[in-house]
Amino acid sequence: MATASLDVVGIGNAIVDIIAHADDGFLAAAGMVKGSMTLIDEARADEIYGKMGPGIEMSGGSAGNTIAGIASLGGRAGYIGKIRNDVLGKVFRHDITSAGVEFPTPSAIDGPATARSMILVTPDAQRTMNTFLGACVNLGPEDIDQALIERAQVTYMEGYLYDPPLAQEAFRHAARLAHAAGRKVSLSLSDSFCVQRHREAFLQLIDTHIDVLFGNEAEITALFETQDFKSATERLRAVCDLAAVTRGAAGSVIVTKEQIIEVPAAPVSRIIDTTGAGDLYASGFLYGMTHGKPFAECGRLASLAAAEIISHYGARPETPLADYVRAA
Amino acid sequence: MATASLDVVGIGNAIVDIIAHADDGFLAAAGMVKGSMTLIDEARADEIYGKMGPGIEMSGGSAGNTIAGIASLGGRAGYIGKIRNDVLGKVFRHDITSAGVEFPTPSAIDGPATARSMILVTPDAQRTMNTFLGACVNLGPEDIDQALIERAQVTYMEGYLYDPPLAQEAFRHAARLAHAAGRKVSLSLSDSFCVQRHREAFLQLIDTHIDVLFGNEAEITALFETQDFKSATERLRAVCDLAAVTRGAAGSVIVTKEQIIEVPAAPVSRIIDTTGAGDLYASGFLYGMTHGKPFAECGRLASLAAAEIISHYGARPETPLADYVRAA
Repeated sequence: MATASLDVVGIGNAIVDIIAHADDGFLAAAGMVKGSMTLIDEARADEIYGKMGPGIEMSGGSAGNTIAGIASLGGRAGYIGKIRNDVLGKVFRHDITSAGVEFPTPSAIDGPATARSMILVTPDAQRTMNTFLGACVNLGPEDIDQALIERAQVTYMEGYLYDPPLAQEAFRHAARLAHAAGRKVSLSLSDSFCVQRHREAFLQLIDTHIDVLFGNEAEITALFETQDFKSATERLRAVCDLAAVTRGAAGSVIVTKEQIIEVPAAPVSRIIDTTGAGDLYASGFLYGMTHGKPFAECGRLASLAAAEIISHYGARPETPLADYVRAA
Repeated sequence: MATASLDVVGIGNAIVDIIAHADDGFLAAAGMVKGSMTLIDEARADEIYGKMGPGIEMSGGSAGNTIAGIASLGGRAGYIGKIRNDVLGKVFRHDITSAGVEFPTPSAIDGPATARSMILVTPDAQRTMNTFLGACVNLGPEDIDQALIERAQVTYMEGYLYDPPLAQEAFRHAARLAHAAGRKVSLSLSDSFCVQRHREAFLQLIDTHIDVLFGNEAEITALFETQDFKSATERLRAVCDLAAVTRGAAGSVIVTKEQIIEVPAAPVSRIIDTTGAGDLYASGFLYGMTHGKPFAECGRLASLAAAEIISHYGARPETPLADYVRAA
């Protein structure tokens, strides 16, 4: 089985989420920008944790969520990311492997603790993330499992991986290995502030290495420094064969050289927590793509996976997505 | 504020829950009895964790859930329970104190790790618990904070506390302190297997120390070794001034020397996970009782708190219960 082909391998920051309620006043008092992901050090992590309300802990990490979603849809998936051999690291490894994902990256036996992100969910279901990267800063090219990359139809990477500096090298190394094996490389832009931090590097990366790009409206417009979505879409076409841009309740747009396909959002009776919406959109899309579905169907699967994740707390599926899609 | 009066102090096994989905086949293959709580050692905990699916971690423990529920209703509450100074212990302390509960028990600096319970939720919403008691085995009389007990109208204890042997002594010590201060003492029977393990001790304890008893139908009938609920109710009347017996979807019965009050279950659109139903029933009842409400109103608050908890995963409220009750 270890040498069977894979649909997707994800590379990302391996993070355990701590999810709690907060109101707008809490965010304001703590100086947080709603909807954003902010990198914090351990002292700030302790400070925020001391002030925030009771939480639930569950495995997260953008690419980790996407990959768990692909497994939940019935796909074959692998993951590369750095944890430590501590309690949260054990939780992360258990959750992703018991979801059926191959996770060969060894745990660090010293250095910073497993990463955690404190996610504050406001009554409007938006999430504001405060991430201590911990062990993720030591992910490097030596962690890129060549055989795993070569076995996967698509290597998928989260833009957040550009925050720990060493990982950029791992990122490009993985992209080169994938292309050398005739495979595809996909990137999620992750967050508009992340795009602002790494705009030039992302543009160069997309031009050189990326076949399939994921982003939301804010990320795409930040990437091309324009306020106009239509012109951002045209710019996208010029640099990338295939992109999927999410627009919240307005659905998403699939952009290729030849066509633009509008995809409606799937209905949700009540939105509880938008954490993971983009991650799971990518799960559905990549699952469809690696199973030979037409783009419109990829978009439909993407919308359904995103709908499941926003209907409850947390960014890993509560219902097996294969069942959820079948029921829809 | 540290000397203000309290409504309820809870004493219990301080546990972090690990909640995951499982099907009946998994329970059968693992030799688990559905709906029960089984005590396990660390090796068995590792074995079960290795086999079970992805989970979410959140603070639990029967009395801990009840006390968090009382705080969520707007009550003033304290908690006594033993954790270690490890990651899960930090999570437990954060969650209960940030809910507004006083928790003076010091963390152990050596010995077993913070307790954890692997809770498997089957598609019928039942929970099957596997608990490694860890640090809880070292809770003793020296951990009973006399001032905290004396400040509280009611000292509430979970029957599970009879499993770690040292805690029985702490239990009786707390009851004596409470009564010496003119306060009331309440017990939850916790689990029918727990009742079978400690039947004689419980009967003696109830007779000597307990003013308010909580249990479900299976626990009460196990306590009096009868299959007949009506005769169990009569026996209850003879040994206890006030008891509340839950009967799942059939609601609950409040039993006093003078009367029997039937309380309907509160409506729930979909039952997701019954973990914590009994714990939160006790929250609502004790909140009502310590706020001078008539028994029927205590029962109504109890049913509402239970309804909130079974409508989502986990045994700590997702919605502030004061808001939930107001909306009902």
